[in-house]
Amino acid sequence: MVRIIGIDPGLRRCGWGVLDSSGNRLSFVACGTIMPPVELSLAERLVHLHRDIDALIDRFRPDEAAVEETFVSAGARSALQLGQARGVVLMTPAARGLPVGEYAANLIKKSVVGTGHAEKGQVQMMIKILLPAADFKGADAADALAIAICHAHHRGIRQLRATA
Amino acid sequence: MVRIIGIDPGLRRCGWGVLDSSGNRLSFVACGTIMPPVELSLAERLVHLHRDIDALIDRFRPDEAAVEETFVSAGARSALQLGQARGVVLMTPAARGLPVGEYAANLIKKSVVGTGHAEKGQVQMMIKILLPAADFKGADAADALAIAICHAHHRGIRQLRATA
Repeated sequence: MVRIIGIDPGLRRCGWGVLDSSGNRLSFVACGTIMPPVELSLAERLVHLHRDIDALIDRFRPDEAAVEETFVSAGARSALQLGQARGVVLMTPAARGLPVGEYAANLIKKSVVGTGHAEKGQVQMMIKILLPAADFKGADAADALAIAICHAHHRGIRQLRATA
Repeated sequence: MVRIIGIDPGLRRCGWGVLDSSGNRLSFVACGTIMPPVELSLAERLVHLHRDIDALIDRFRPDEAAVEETFVSAGARSALQLGQARGVVLMTPAARGLPVGEYAANLIKKSVVGTGHAEKGQVQMMIKILLPAADFKGADAADALAIAICHAHHRGIRQLRATA
């Protein structure tokens, strides 16, 4: 059994989801959204993000972490903003000794829905089927669970290859 | 007397410089460049950056930190990369309770050279005049000292205003 935390980076809304993976079985543990108060300075919001992720690691003791590879279609300014949150999101579990997997958005969708071009609604529907206990309220936590599911699939493939 | 650490964010080369500011007097303390090994994963390189900045704070005990406001002229992809390093660079001193000032590149140049359109070489020459003891070898550490000098000037102006 391996416990995975998936994180969908963002400075305003950072989704997270924890699940247990054992062979083909997945089971939901918890999920939520970190929302650093917008009235804080940028540095303070990044500290808020760092401390909340650290606290989740303390609380749920995941073995591995997974983060979405950011697709930079937007302008350079928003890429910089997202990058700042993403830097903290990648660094925090790695500083705690967790391996951190990175997955492209279309691989995440393919792992969950079966196609890389799925809509947000399809992803959320499939997560309700794959993890019936998941009580996510917004798209951010659902996306984070999708990232964790993708990691559960692909770490398994890696292990099969390693033992083949 | 206030001790300031200036940091010029970057994932390949992150410059830092520490100085003491007392009234109009500036004195050089130390400077250098953090270079996280390129063979590490992105998450591990960000951890390297985080730990090295934390170690500098332990060693030099700065009271305040200053970071350059990144100008995003380059493409979205490089803005994301720089953003990831910048997120960790802003977060680390703030997590240690240091106030973190952010300054635009042209304000930093103006503080050091007198004009916002100075060349790199002019900045380095002025730093050798303002901080004769500074033993920087590359542009990154010199830029970090320029950021610290800018903060020393502008925090003074803020304090004058506050007591006027």
